Amino acid sequence: MHVVHTINEVRAAVAAARKAGKTIGFVPTMGALHAGHGSLVQKARSECGYVVVSIFVNPTQFGPTEDFSKYPRTLGDDTTLCAAMGADCIFAPAVEEMYPEQNLSWVDVEKLSEGLCGASRPGHFRGVTTVCTKLFHIVLPDIAYFGQKDAQQAAVLCRMVSDLNFPMQIKVCPIVREADGLAMSSRNRYLSQDDRRRAVCLYQALCLCKQQVEKGVVSVSDLVRQISEVLTAAGGAPDYISIVDAKSLQPLHVIDRDALIAIACRVGPARLIDNMLIFLNPLRFQL
Amino acid sequence: MHVVHTINEVRAAVAAARKAGKTIGFVPTMGALHAGHGSLVQKARSECGYVVVSIFVNPTQFGPTEDFSKYPRTLGDDTTLCAAMGADCIFAPAVEEMYPEQNLSWVDVEKLSEGLCGASRPGHFRGVTTVCTKLFHIVLPDIAYFGQKDAQQAAVLCRMVSDLNFPMQIKVCPIVREADGLAMSSRNRYLSQDDRRRAVCLYQALCLCKQQVEKGVVSVSDLVRQISEVLTAAGGAPDYISIVDAKSLQPLHVIDRDALIAIACRVGPARLIDNMLIFLNPLRFQL
Repeated sequence: MHVVHTINEVRAAVAAARKAGKTIGFVPTMGALHAGHGSLVQKARSECGYVVVSIFVNPTQFGPTEDFSKYPRTLGDDTTLCAAMGADCIFAPAVEEMYPEQNLSWVDVEKLSEGLCGASRPGHFRGVTTVCTKLFHIVLPDIAYFGQKDAQQAAVLCRMVSDLNFPMQIKVCPIVREADGLAMSSRNRYLSQDDRRRAVCLYQALCLCKQQVEKGVVSVSDLVRQISEVLTAAGGAPDYISIVDAKSLQPLHVIDRDALIAIACRVGPARLIDNMLIFLNPLRFQL
Repeated sequence: MHVVHTINEVRAAVAAARKAGKTIGFVPTMGALHAGHGSLVQKARSECGYVVVSIFVNPTQFGPTEDFSKYPRTLGDDTTLCAAMGADCIFAPAVEEMYPEQNLSWVDVEKLSEGLCGASRPGHFRGVTTVCTKLFHIVLPDIAYFGQKDAQQAAVLCRMVSDLNFPMQIKVCPIVREADGLAMSSRNRYLSQDDRRRAVCLYQALCLCKQQVEKGVVSVSDLVRQISEVLTAAGGAPDYISIVDAKSLQPLHVIDRDALIAIACRVGPARLIDNMLIFLNPLRFQL
C-alpha cells in the first residue's frame, strides 16, 4: 500500500491503475478511522480494482468554535487499518497542499444543506461539498463510498453529483455500531467512561421510535417528544431531533412517506449524531 | 462532424476519441457564433485531437429582466461555422437535458464575481460557473477555450479550475474585432444600422485610454472620465467603466501594476462589453 501526500503523486498512482484497466474506488475520510470507515474500504475493495482512501481534516468544514484543532489525528493507526482492509493507496495531504492560496470557489447545495446539522453548523456543508469536489477532481474515482451515519452529508453529496454531472457515482453504506448499539464515530474518543455509557441513548431513542412507528404512531410531534425524553433522561442535551422526508430532507408532520429520523445530541464534551431510515410499503427500518 | 443533443451521446463520442489516444479540446458557447468563437475552435483544432463545441443558451446565467428568451438561436449557421473551423462534435442539449430537475447545486467564485458585470448582473457568474462545471464534467476536456472579450468570465473560470482542482486547463484567447474595431459579439445582432455605427465608441474609448497611459497618465479617475466622455459623446450609456487589478479584479486608484480596463455600455437596445489589458514592465497592451 502506498501512502502519498501530494496531489501529483495520487494523480500518478490513479492514472497508472486506470491505464492498467482498473476501476477506481474512493473513500474520503478525516482519519481517526474506525470499523465504520473499515466497512467502506472493504466495500470499495470488493467492487473496484484500485482503492484510494483520503485522510484530510478539512478546515473549511469546521466552524470557528468547533473542534478542528483537537480533532484526533492518528495516521499510524489509520495506515494499519487501511492496509488490513485492502486499500491500495492513502492520500494524506497537508492543508497547504489542498489550499495553497485563499480559497474563493465554493460549491453549495441549497435546501438539503439548510436543516439538521446545517442549521447548527453554518458553513459546514459548504466546506464538505467544496473539499469533496476538490478530492473528486484529484482522485477521479468511478465510485465514492460514504457512510449513512452522516445521512445529511450523504444526501447533499448525492444531489451534488447528480446536479453537477460528476462522472462517477456515490454509494452510501450502512451505519456500523458498537456491541451496545452506539454508532461508530471518530468523536466517540472524546467520551469519558461515564459519557460512553450514556452515549447509547441516541441508539435507544431511535429503537424506541422504531417500536412506536411499528405500533402505528405517525405523529412527528409525538415521536419527537418521546425521543427527547429518552435523550434527556440519560443526561444528553439534544441539539436537534428531526423527522424529515428521506430524499428532500424537508420536515414532515406525519410519517406518510419514506422518512429519516435524525438526532444530534451533546453527551459530555461530544456532539454525537445518529439516524434511522423508515421505508413505508412495506414498513421496514435501517438503523 | 457529429451533432449530438444528449449527455450520453457526447460522453460516448469523447470516450471513443480518448480511447483512440486523442486529447480533448472544448469550446463552450451559447451559439449565435461569430468569428470570435471561430478563432477559439481553430485554436482548439490546432492543439487537440478531438474538438467539441457546446451550444447551449444557459437560463441560469440570465437575470429575470435579461434577454434569455430573445437571445439569438442559429443552430444551422453555427453548425456550418463549426464544420468549417474543423470541430469534430457539436453538443447542443435542450434545457431539460441540462436541468432535468430543479438545480440545487451551485458553484460560486467569491470576490472575482462581485465587481464589474457581477455588480450589474447579480447571479450571472454563479450561473456561468455552475453550467461550466456541468459541461466540464460531461465533456471532460484536457483544455477549454474562452475569449478575452468576457474578461471577468475568463478570470472567474480560471480561478474556479485552480481552486477546485479540475483536471484540465483553461486557455484564454484574444478578442476578435470587426474592421472598425468593434469587438465581435452575438449581441451585436441587436444593433440597428445607426447603433452599429455608434457601437465602435467602446473600442475608441479603449484606444484613447491606451494613448493616455502611453503619455504617462496613471490616474484611474482621470482615465475613467475621459473614457466616459467618449462613450456619452457617441450616444452610449455607460453601465460601468472600471480599471482593476488584472488578476484579482480589485479596483485600482493608479495604474501601478498589470491592469484591466473594462467597459460595459448600452448602445440602443444592446448592452455591450469590451476591455483592454495593460501590462507594465515593459508597457504593452492587449486590445
